[in-house]
Amino acid sequence: MGVRIGKVEIGGPEFIVIAGPCAVESERQLLETAEAVALAGARILRGGAFKPRTSPYAFQGLGLEGLRLLAKARRATGLPFVTEVMTDTQVHIIAEYADMLQVGSRSMGNWALLEAVALSGRPVLLKRGMSATVEELAEVADALRSGGNAQVVLCERGIRTFGTATRNTCDIAAVPLLQNLTGLPVILDPSHATGRRDLISPVSRAGVAIGADGLIIEVHPNPERALSDGDQSLTFDQFRDLVDDIEPFVKIRAGRRFEVYAGA
Amino acid sequence: MGVRIGKVEIGGPEFIVIAGPCAVESERQLLETAEAVALAGARILRGGAFKPRTSPYAFQGLGLEGLRLLAKARRATGLPFVTEVMTDTQVHIIAEYADMLQVGSRSMGNWALLEAVALSGRPVLLKRGMSATVEELAEVADALRSGGNAQVVLCERGIRTFGTATRNTCDIAAVPLLQNLTGLPVILDPSHATGRRDLISPVSRAGVAIGADGLIIEVHPNPERALSDGDQSLTFDQFRDLVDDIEPFVKIRAGRRFEVYAGA
Amino acid sequence: MGVRIGKVEIGGPEFIVIAGPCAVESERQLLETAEAVALAGARILRGGAFKPRTSPYAFQGLGLEGLRLLAKARRATGLPFVTEVMTDTQVHIIAEYADMLQVGSRSMGNWALLEAVALSGRPVLLKRGMSATVEELAEVADALRSGGNAQVVLCERGIRTFGTATRNTCDIAAVPLLQNLTGLPVILDPSHATGRRDLISPVSRAGVAIGADGLIIEVHPNPERALSDGDQSLTFDQFRDLVDDIEPFVKIRAGRRFEVYAGA
Amino acid sequence: MGVRIGKVEIGGPEFIVIAGPCAVESERQLLETAEAVALAGARILRGGAFKPRTSPYAFQGLGLEGLRLLAKARRATGLPFVTEVMTDTQVHIIAEYADMLQVGSRSMGNWALLEAVALSGRPVLLKRGMSATVEELAEVADALRSGGNAQVVLCERGIRTFGTATRNTCDIAAVPLLQNLTGLPVILDPSHATGRRDLISPVSRAGVAIGADGLIIEVHPNPERALSDGDQSLTFDQFRDLVDDIEPFVKIRAGRRFEVYAGA
Repeated sequence: MGVRIGKVEIGGPEFIVIAGPCAVESERQLLETAEAVALAGARILRGGAFKPRTSPYAFQGLGLEGLRLLAKARRATGLPFVTEVMTDTQVHIIAEYADMLQVGSRSMGNWALLEAVALSGRPVLLKRGMSATVEELAEVADALRSGGNAQVVLCERGIRTFGTATRNTCDIAAVPLLQNLTGLPVILDPSHATGRRDLISPVSRAGVAIGADGLIIEVHPNPERALSDGDQSLTFDQFRDLVDDIEPFVKIRAGRRFEVYAGA
Repeated sequence: MGVRIGKVEIGGPEFIVIAGPCAVESERQLLETAEAVALAGARILRGGAFKPRTSPYAFQGLGLEGLRLLAKARRATGLPFVTEVMTDTQVHIIAEYADMLQVGSRSMGNWALLEAVALSGRPVLLKRGMSATVEELAEVADALRSGGNAQVVLCERGIRTFGTATRNTCDIAAVPLLQNLTGLPVILDPSHATGRRDLISPVSRAGVAIGADGLIIEVHPNPERALSDGDQSLTFDQFRDLVDDIEPFVKIRAGRRFEVYAGA
Repeated sequence: MGVRIGKVEIGGPEFIVIAGPCAVESERQLLETAEAVALAGARILRGGAFKPRTSPYAFQGLGLEGLRLLAKARRATGLPFVTEVMTDTQVHIIAEYADMLQVGSRSMGNWALLEAVALSGRPVLLKRGMSATVEELAEVADALRSGGNAQVVLCERGIRTFGTATRNTCDIAAVPLLQNLTGLPVILDPSHATGRRDLISPVSRAGVAIGADGLIIEVHPNPERALSDGDQSLTFDQFRDLVDDIEPFVKIRAGRRFEVYAGA
Repeated sequence: MGVRIGKVEIGGPEFIVIAGPCAVESERQLLETAEAVALAGARILRGGAFKPRTSPYAFQGLGLEGLRLLAKARRATGLPFVTEVMTDTQVHIIAEYADMLQVGSRSMGNWALLEAVALSGRPVLLKRGMSATVEELAEVADALRSGGNAQVVLCERGIRTFGTATRNTCDIAAVPLLQNLTGLPVILDPSHATGRRDLISPVSRAGVAIGADGLIIEVHPNPERALSDGDQSLTFDQFRDLVDDIEPFVKIRAGRRFEVYAGA
């Protein structure tokens, strides 16, 4: 019933951690990170080649060279990788390299992109828009399935509210709501949901306990020097601590994914 | 370092579940519920005697008679109880009966009430307003301490956002944020945060895992007939299932309360 | 059909400007301000005697002495005055002095206060809570009328959203919505809705044009030295400019108050 | 200093009303509407050829045929037209037909589209995303200008808040804020901001009075039968009433556009 990305299944019995840098910045940065997260227990690598820019002056990513580096990191570590697609015309070339295509939170309403992704045949990581309701996200997932692509994993990554202590507000209840509404696997992105390194471990534990099917975490060799999202990126040591921190919760979650509403 | 309510400590090593009906409706309703939640593992009884009305037509509570019934339930079960104070002039009389005074989410800005509560000498359960930031809640807690009452427990109970699938949006990251900002115990109210019976167990697990010091849960002998909050009240069986559901998570949380930011 | 405050009617043919300092700070500050706003065209004086504190360190107001100064300013200028009531036990004494009682945005859920206000016999200025829906505000107005007080004027003063460029977000459409839902006069508070001196005049024009029955504006002899709300207070000159700025719009609004939905 | 669309200037001395159907549905529907709005005083025609779909089952627009009909309506009425571009690959062909390209609220974060629009040489109507801050919208406008296209008009069309009485919440203060932040013309879309026919006229008056440079209004021969946005579309008669309703306010706004902050 889960979604297969290479040899890994999201939504099956195993809890899946996806990790890697926000953006692919260099061969060394990516390979070191891929090896560190693989060793710590990550099962899928993440990394942006074509970056969504929140401003015209922000780093735009390495593009095709980034994809080649991600493929190289896959060969070196055995980890399949997910990377974001920003526009419909990129989908074809990115799908040749990537194991899974990410539709970012700014793209949930980009129907040309969604159509191309539906036709790509690749598994999709569909992130919730920052002001999208759970019903709207479920509708987009339905559209992907109607478009021929049923390999969809949803991702709660925080919503925009009046709060300013965190980058976004983690809507933790959206995890079981979306599982129930769609029947699809749902993972949590505590990096974007909080935007704060110090909250990633606690929020990750909450994600495990509520029954999420996995996590996606930003990791960087040197967050202070990261070209993007440095404030929310973990060092290699911090990522290992996170995996240790959630491990006992992962062990006892068995079965809770499908019993979410059993008590009700 | 915790807050003592009778023989119970919130913020100490034990995870504390507070449970009971939204409103005290009758002697039978209250005593049956108190016995059921005590048997299932609740350590503190909750119940509204003076009810906050969201409309002039809503049930207003039994008043003083409700307090007497709560005291009777305490004698019968040994559970201390918490009940809401709505106005400054009630504080004196309610403080004679109750072990802990609840300041509700609508009262976070009622300074006359806060002053009376500060002077009462009773432990306080201070609920976050539905549009209050964590900083604003921390400021009110500070004011209570400046006013002479340091026995304060904070409660995240959901905030108002654009979402409509749940009654409020559970801001789960507020739990460690508030623990860190204030040094006070913080509990979670999944009943009000979600407003949906089917989400209370999953959100409770998330609360345990993120490091909350306890939960407050609405329980009713017959939720369909409850005079208030029926949609979010658990039956006795559902409450026992909830306690069973969180139990393995409670066991392994040991120490996490104070290590919240250790990985960061 | 309007609400009478002394010789002034809100909700009648005349557009009513209420103005004055956030808080009464001294006799000189209040009398100078009262005279300046009366001369510029204000018809009602505002001023806080008992202040809602957003923090325990904020200015708390002059209390009873503030009420006496407001009464003195009324004698000097002929302007009736509105002042906020914070708690039910204050209502009796404040109602002896004030022409109109303001229920502030933090008090919309304070039922003990609302009951006392309903019984006071004084006209009420009921401000919308920062996260209250228009339906919830209409319900509270209904409760005041059920409680025996039909002399209610509603006030839109901005809601809390994700925006940070302004203190609150002015929900301008709430003005006709509330007029239609309740049949009551509705005024606009551009000072709190924006929190920015530079936006008060433009937003006031919008309020006139959409059909509000009046405005409430914060004015101070020296905003830089104001003990509260300095950033959103106008100088005397700025207040005169505001009155001049809205004047041509006020002239042509005739009839629009009751024709709000005529085009639909 | 304004932006020219054919012979019309937005941001100059004249207040500009853009009107037309949400979607081009048929030749007859479009031509009748174009003639009716031209006669009533609209200066630019709007109409969607390629529709943003909020769900996979919604009407997708007539595509290229829609563009041809819009060009035909332009010949018949003399009105230049604005239509939405949904994806970067459409921009080239749509720019051959349209006088102005609309970037919709869901596309504010679609950088491939923004780049294509920047290169198109056509004036742009850039709508605010439903959870975008004014600063974020100003940044996107800057990016278009850096990309070589300074012919940008901004549009406030409502933001997503907790309110449910209207489709979105009209953030009226965003109009002067954006004018001041960017120096660009800013128009108001009361149709999407409210989603309610009965509020369009009052909110339009507020837009005129606050100093907006124009309005964009949805009009349909038979709103009950509209394939999209029927609830917020005006009939021809209602549109004429709207133009009459705002006329006196338009007359006296002279100069206010550039004096927005004069009183501050």
